[in-house]
Amino acid sequence: MKKKPKVLILMGSDSDLPVMNEAAAVLAEFGVASHMTVASAHRTPARAADLATGAEKRGIEVIIAGAGMAAHLAGVVAAHTILPVIGVPLDASPVKGLDALLSTVQMPPGIPVATVAIGKAGARNAGILALQILARSDRSVAAALKAFRKRMAREVEKKARRVESAATPL
Amino acid sequence: MKKKPKVLILMGSDSDLPVMNEAAAVLAEFGVASHMTVASAHRTPARAADLATGAEKRGIEVIIAGAGMAAHLAGVVAAHTILPVIGVPLDASPVKGLDALLSTVQMPPGIPVATVAIGKAGARNAGILALQILARSDRSVAAALKAFRKRMAREVEKKARRVESAATPL
Amino acid sequence: MKKKPKVLILMGSDSDLPVMNEAAAVLAEFGVASHMTVASAHRTPARAADLATGAEKRGIEVIIAGAGMAAHLAGVVAAHTILPVIGVPLDASPVKGLDALLSTVQMPPGIPVATVAIGKAGARNAGILALQILARSDRSVAAALKAFRKRMAREVEKKARRVESAATPL
Amino acid sequence: MKKKPKVLILMGSDSDLPVMNEAAAVLAEFGVASHMTVASAHRTPARAADLATGAEKRGIEVIIAGAGMAAHLAGVVAAHTILPVIGVPLDASPVKGLDALLSTVQMPPGIPVATVAIGKAGARNAGILALQILARSDRSVAAALKAFRKRMAREVEKKARRVESAATPL
Amino acid sequence: MKKKPKVLILMGSDSDLPVMNEAAAVLAEFGVASHMTVASAHRTPARAADLATGAEKRGIEVIIAGAGMAAHLAGVVAAHTILPVIGVPLDASPVKGLDALLSTVQMPPGIPVATVAIGKAGARNAGILALQILARSDRSVAAALKAFRKRMAREVEKKARRVESAATPL
Amino acid sequence: MKKKPKVLILMGSDSDLPVMNEAAAVLAEFGVASHMTVASAHRTPARAADLATGAEKRGIEVIIAGAGMAAHLAGVVAAHTILPVIGVPLDASPVKGLDALLSTVQMPPGIPVATVAIGKAGARNAGILALQILARSDRSVAAALKAFRKRMAREVEKKARRVESAATPL
Amino acid sequence: MKKKPKVLILMGSDSDLPVMNEAAAVLAEFGVASHMTVASAHRTPARAADLATGAEKRGIEVIIAGAGMAAHLAGVVAAHTILPVIGVPLDASPVKGLDALLSTVQMPPGIPVATVAIGKAGARNAGILALQILARSDRSVAAALKAFRKRMAREVEKKARRVESAATPL
Amino acid sequence: MKKKPKVLILMGSDSDLPVMNEAAAVLAEFGVASHMTVASAHRTPARAADLATGAEKRGIEVIIAGAGMAAHLAGVVAAHTILPVIGVPLDASPVKGLDALLSTVQMPPGIPVATVAIGKAGARNAGILALQILARSDRSVAAALKAFRKRMAREVEKKARRVESAATPL
Repeated sequence: MKKKPKVLILMGSDSDLPVMNEAAAVLAEFGVASHMTVASAHRTPARAADLATGAEKRGIEVIIAGAGMAAHLAGVVAAHTILPVIGVPLDASPVKGLDALLSTVQMPPGIPVATVAIGKAGARNAGILALQILARSDRSVAAALKAFRKRMAREVEKKARRVESAATPL
Repeated sequence: MKKKPKVLILMGSDSDLPVMNEAAAVLAEFGVASHMTVASAHRTPARAADLATGAEKRGIEVIIAGAGMAAHLAGVVAAHTILPVIGVPLDASPVKGLDALLSTVQMPPGIPVATVAIGKAGARNAGILALQILARSDRSVAAALKAFRKRMAREVEKKARRVESAATPL
Repeated sequence: MKKKPKVLILMGSDSDLPVMNEAAAVLAEFGVASHMTVASAHRTPARAADLATGAEKRGIEVIIAGAGMAAHLAGVVAAHTILPVIGVPLDASPVKGLDALLSTVQMPPGIPVATVAIGKAGARNAGILALQILARSDRSVAAALKAFRKRMAREVEKKARRVESAATPL
Repeated sequence: MKKKPKVLILMGSDSDLPVMNEAAAVLAEFGVASHMTVASAHRTPARAADLATGAEKRGIEVIIAGAGMAAHLAGVVAAHTILPVIGVPLDASPVKGLDALLSTVQMPPGIPVATVAIGKAGARNAGILALQILARSDRSVAAALKAFRKRMAREVEKKARRVESAATPL
Repeated sequence: MKKKPKVLILMGSDSDLPVMNEAAAVLAEFGVASHMTVASAHRTPARAADLATGAEKRGIEVIIAGAGMAAHLAGVVAAHTILPVIGVPLDASPVKGLDALLSTVQMPPGIPVATVAIGKAGARNAGILALQILARSDRSVAAALKAFRKRMAREVEKKARRVESAATPL
Repeated sequence: MKKKPKVLILMGSDSDLPVMNEAAAVLAEFGVASHMTVASAHRTPARAADLATGAEKRGIEVIIAGAGMAAHLAGVVAAHTILPVIGVPLDASPVKGLDALLSTVQMPPGIPVATVAIGKAGARNAGILALQILARSDRSVAAALKAFRKRMAREVEKKARRVESAATPL
Repeated sequence: MKKKPKVLILMGSDSDLPVMNEAAAVLAEFGVASHMTVASAHRTPARAADLATGAEKRGIEVIIAGAGMAAHLAGVVAAHTILPVIGVPLDASPVKGLDALLSTVQMPPGIPVATVAIGKAGARNAGILALQILARSDRSVAAALKAFRKRMAREVEKKARRVESAATPL
Repeated sequence: MKKKPKVLILMGSDSDLPVMNEAAAVLAEFGVASHMTVASAHRTPARAADLATGAEKRGIEVIIAGAGMAAHLAGVVAAHTILPVIGVPLDASPVKGLDALLSTVQMPPGIPVATVAIGKAGARNAGILALQILARSDRSVAAALKAFRKRMAREVEKKARRVESAATPL
């Protein structure tokens, strides 16, 4: 995986790493290189802006940004680039990610953030959504995604068999 | 705009047209052709599945799906294609789109929906997000998006001037 | 319990088994055979549609579908059958089943889902609701349900005695 | 429609009539007689209990109960009968039916209420769900429901044509 | 405490006992006898109605009813008596008592339930509210409540001293 | 109604008068005098405290306090008296009374507020709850409440007749 | 009011002007000059950052920022200055300002936003809070605030008289 | 730190100490003395009022008040002083601090509370917000805050380095 990264994965704090790793992991499964780092919309606004502004020139195609609480990171990043920005709301406060979800998805007209589910499920889906965007101009990713869909279906069917084995046959 | 449509805009009901038109309108502003139609995840599941399954072959690059209440349309469409699917949650019930938002964004791992804001703001942003995805392989769209960002900024500044004119100078 | 299953119990993932078992268990208590399997509305949409479409011909009278997050399974199943579909919203995300509840209950006009409570209580009640529907054409189930109601009442009274024993008499 | 009613439609207040009429109307469309009346779980608890207790003997097969606020009607009715009880949460307070939804759907284990969507959409779906239950032992209702599904699909397709006519062809 | 009970404490399930004991305990601290038992609005509706209907004649002055989920108990009890009914919403489902709170407090016009906080804090306050009502016609309870208020204030002040001792003096 | 007031009705602002009048009206229907005035927990804290502190001596038996937004009035009043305090959460902000409900009902252990429904329904019920408390020591109020309950039931039945007249007979 | 502005009032869009004017108006009532302008965290991120960064040097003491939806403005501004930043969440989407409230108040550790109520009430309070901060180093503002408090109390009392005049005397 | 305290930190209960200590700790880091004590808006209303009323004379510049449930403390304190009052909503009930947040932030026009995030993050930010207010008239605090911002940014960058070290270089 020494290829140039096509996806930039940002997180508001290094404590978000275990969750955001899900995005990096799924990209790695598909052989797509990603660059992962920390940038806080509030503690390092210039850093967040610079990473976003410079991403396109560095060959980044999609940015994934995960943050909790008043999760401004994805929106702030989206304000500095025309690359598609995928926002992952994290469950990092007593209100269980509802704050991060609304802060990420309710972007005003003009600057969209492609928001996915709260937490780990969302982080993994952010990686897959990035692959679906990359697949628009990379046939090998498209083919891999189609194979992945079939694999997922087969896994569900395998689990179905296991659950059925204990059940009355249809 | 007799070009082949690159974006497929689906809505669960024709009553959603005034909102979903925002997506079509912004695409038209950028000279990108879209095809807009109605498909219900529940009343016409086969139609929704067929439109999703066949979209890639027809040259569609991105699908936008808007639905209210238990808004399953975007998720059902996403299950039948590896194209990026953008979900627009609509405010169509007493709980004001919170049902549609959670039904659209909280997709389980494996099948993401790129969710935008509830209602008109979201529909417009769905169009812009589609453009940002198209721009990955279309330099003219990328250039147009950069110009659009500058125009938006100038408009904000013009409005700022108007508001300031009545205010004490800084 | 080698009888032909009258109730089909579907779940979006095998991790839902411990909860959905509650539905199977209550049906078994009443000597009603059920078939339980896994079908994801998103990872195996065709499988979910096929199971729903074919259920009536296989002698199924009621379908129970449990799913978490953007719980589309019950709605997708309901779209493919005129059998009554009972939806069990599962608590499978940081927002504690509120996403699954709204995704299951807020069905648009035309395709209802009979929704029960979130989680285990709902899964058990899904089984009982299925029995109440079966009882419409099966007197033995109706009689068993009436006996069950009396048993439940007696159990509450027994517990009441235990609580009262430590209390001042009325 | 001088047939004996098979569905009992209850509402907590006569102000709920315009909404609950949706349930009666859809039943009438299918030629199924229903009896509609008012019974408050709180202002007339004995009346609500009596209607529920006596329903089965009077030939009722399904009960639909609509109520707003702390909507106890469906649950109270369900406590007095083993007939399937469909609950329609009504939007009758500043919190927009969320109170009625949770009061209706979150029934404790033992006594289920088959809950549908908040308001008019839910009332109409309550009628359809009742028909789906009746169809288990009435082939003509089953056939009519299948025809209804096709009609609904055709209507969606007709609307789709109308929306498409203004759009770029696919 | 062999006195006749003046407060009837009902709970929907014996699993609610550890919480509802808080109400009994505070009444006992004031030397007011209470009778505590289980009555389910749904599993034993007749029992709940009978307890409510007969309470006044048995010398009960106030009823406290605690229930979780679709907490109908307090409302159902209130429908059968003109005694003041205090409702304690319990945290017994994934939505953390919000269901029980709305089911208890949002009573329709005519039949109020005096609702207190969710869970243990509410159960304890239900006991105190019952005492405040009893104090209207029992001077000794009134006097005890005033002493109790002073004690509470002193305890807060004692704790304040402890916290302050580690702090910079004002 | 020149009798000495037994119920003190407070509201946070005179804009709450149309809603809080419901409480006064129902008391007047029962011939119970009430005194109604404005006192803000925040703008006139001393006034609120004084009214609460002095109420018992002036012969007040129950206090009703209605407020919107961060509705502290009922809690602040309750802190200064051992009289039962009934809180009416008002719908006075974009979040539709949910703020006032939680601010009123979630009182910490020691100082309860008897909370009723949001808005007009709650204000009317506050009056009835006050009557139910007064009835503990006033047989004529108790008798009037019983008659009122019967009247309410008869009214529901009258409305039931009207709804039924258009329906298929049971 | 030709004095140099001490308070900078920012809003995300000129459509927020009628609400944010409340903040300017209350400052004007106290003779404190403010400068009001538009700056979008997303459409003009550099402008928002520049205004925040330069504010302290221009003599600004407090910044007020109002925004709706995913209201990032206050947080983004706070990231660029050590001046106290007051955030006003605006009701500008179907979810009624709950999105803006959580986006504004749930700031991560390190960069606080002093959040006030949603909408007009909050905008007015933002002005008053700014005055309370200015009063720390400006005795005339402090004195004016004390007079204002007295005036507010008198107004409440005047309204109280009006409401009481129609009521039974205490 | 034998200096006179400039910040008064109040909490509704000594069980709030571990959370509210975050505010005291950050002030101590900056060498600003604070006085911390317990005062309940409901159990010791006079104490809360006295502490608020007397604070200004004792040299207090800012008050921080933390409370859970129906968190009235900050509002009650704000009603008795023109000092800026910072409210910290605490997560002390099953609804996870949403009650405390709305009770603290939704203050009616006239008496603002500067509300920060729920729980520990909010308590720490309350301390920092207090410092930002103190910095308006204390250059050394302003300088320390600027240094603190830089330190925070450097820490984020250090963490970024650590996360990046395992990632593909950009």
